[in-house]
Amino acid sequence: ATKASRIRQVAKDGVLIDFGLRRAQGLGGYHASRAAVVGGFDATSNARAARDFSLQPSGTMAHSYVQSHESELAAFRSFAAARPNDCVLLVDTYDTLQSGLPNAITVAREMEKKGQRLKAIRLDSGDLAYLAKRSRAMLDAAGLQEVKIAASNQLDEYVIRSLMSQGAPIDVFGVGTSLVIGRPDAALDGVYKMAAVGDRPVIKLSENVSKITLPAKKQVWRVLDRDGLFLGADVVGLLDEGEIPRMHHPFVPHQSFAVAGYETEPLLQRVMDEGRIVYDPPSLSRTARYCRDRLDRLPAEYKRFENPHIYKVGLSGELKALRDRLIAQHRK
Amino acid sequence: ATKASRIRQVAKDGVLIDFGLRRAQGLGGYHASRAAVVGGFDATSNARAARDFSLQPSGTMAHSYVQSHESELAAFRSFAAARPNDCVLLVDTYDTLQSGLPNAITVAREMEKKGQRLKAIRLDSGDLAYLAKRSRAMLDAAGLQEVKIAASNQLDEYVIRSLMSQGAPIDVFGVGTSLVIGRPDAALDGVYKMAAVGDRPVIKLSENVSKITLPAKKQVWRVLDRDGLFLGADVVGLLDEGEIPRMHHPFVPHQSFAVAGYETEPLLQRVMDEGRIVYDPPSLSRTARYCRDRLDRLPAEYKRFENPHIYKVGLSGELKALRDRLIAQHRK
Repeated sequence: ATKASRIRQVAKDGVLIDFGLRRAQGLGGYHASRAAVVGGFDATSNARAARDFSLQPSGTMAHSYVQSHESELAAFRSFAAARPNDCVLLVDTYDTLQSGLPNAITVAREMEKKGQRLKAIRLDSGDLAYLAKRSRAMLDAAGLQEVKIAASNQLDEYVIRSLMSQGAPIDVFGVGTSLVIGRPDAALDGVYKMAAVGDRPVIKLSENVSKITLPAKKQVWRVLDRDGLFLGADVVGLLDEGEIPRMHHPFVPHQSFAVAGYETEPLLQRVMDEGRIVYDPPSLSRTARYCRDRLDRLPAEYKRFENPHIYKVGLSGELKALRDRLIAQHRK
Repeated sequence: ATKASRIRQVAKDGVLIDFGLRRAQGLGGYHASRAAVVGGFDATSNARAARDFSLQPSGTMAHSYVQSHESELAAFRSFAAARPNDCVLLVDTYDTLQSGLPNAITVAREMEKKGQRLKAIRLDSGDLAYLAKRSRAMLDAAGLQEVKIAASNQLDEYVIRSLMSQGAPIDVFGVGTSLVIGRPDAALDGVYKMAAVGDRPVIKLSENVSKITLPAKKQVWRVLDRDGLFLGADVVGLLDEGEIPRMHHPFVPHQSFAVAGYETEPLLQRVMDEGRIVYDPPSLSRTARYCRDRLDRLPAEYKRFENPHIYKVGLSGELKALRDRLIAQHRK
């Protein structure tokens, strides 16, 4: 979902389609399709995910469709006959500008005579910025201004940002591998550790202070500025702690920041109790809207790709004291 | 499986256990457990994969097990009582050398009095080479020479090679994330393209010559040297082609290599026919043995991690001529 939101950030109002299924492990691509929509994608090429999560299924033809016909033109005609209302033609099987575009324009004109309309062409290789500009010019010159251009092939947020900055006239982006595997982070190295046994807080120690766990049942408080935007600081405190005047650096002694007077909101909600779900999850579209609204409240400096501000996380005085007490107990 | 075989290569006779389930997507970790055994792993911590693929299930306790007891010593005693024949104690919850090892030694001695034997301790953080040496010395000094040392924590073939070169007395390696996600290759960027429709060979063109597909039904021939080792060259030819005298570079004109006179063996077998399986797959242990035997026939220069020799793949004259004819047809 984070990857998807980064891609949405640079794609502006472009249509984003998840093409990732083939590159994920096992059912990973299926769940990635859902996460992509949370992060701002519009549709998926994964038919089962579309059905199960009420998403828009979307896609085009494969190269094999073109190859299995006697000619590219015959393939395009056959596809247009089968899908007159949703026809996207893949134009790079043989030669994008010499063969694919001319054949797509021929079929678009034949469709017009039947009162139909070619929806889009799809570029899947080569210099996408150059080919999109040339394709747009050829389509426009043929009076096909309404035919969209879709692009795919190893896209991620950096490539799409580059295409946008070059003014590439691409309307639809299909993103696969980098979306579903979360490149460059191939794995989420998160672990969970026990924080309490019943009401007894417990701790896991380490020589590396940043790996020492935070004991006890906790709440996380987000600090808001006067405009309701995120201030850039979350405070982790004890679940039953009262108002928290200061947040303390988790590792560096005597470094703290006053949060009294700021508005805060709790981030954690109880979703399970004694193994039973005690939470009514919102619809996927509502979750996606929530994600967008929250990202809108995060200042731009935290969202830029190069040298972003780092969101601070601090401890309440009571949590810090409890942690340090448990460390001392085990080390004595 | 390739990642597993690289890890096996450096781990020598060490016991290798797959710990990857938690870091893979969906069912990816389940299939990775099987692939790990093909590549040379001995066991898996994934109980379902162990059951389904007849593998040895293997593992230790979690930090939460230790944390949920009143003390580390109480936790170790309770675990030893529950698993007297297969007891591996995780010693780094609080302090490996000050607490974990002394408590493990206490329990090992208590087990000895009952005629039982502590199987191993497990290190999961810190400087594994240093801690393994110190732990070995402490165990040996306590007369516990037979207690093994297991290690885990972000292991891969490079870390294990380093541990081996430092003489770290580690008997068992648990490998997780890097194994199941195949780091640094987070995705296998392979695609399949149609090669023939019935008996008609077809092609996919590209401006990038290395992406132009090879048409027609094919066979791959491995060239063997006089000792039966792999010569470092595979020839791709037409399925019904006779003897192949030379292999040609796929892209560079006039570059070829004589293979006449060498023994060759076909690599492709038919496993599906008209959608039905026509192949009796060997057992997993047989597949693992085949993998090891084949790797033994691959000269060491191809298996080293730094600047390995590149295995050459060439085309038969007939396949090259067919490809070039189809390219010319589409470009005319």
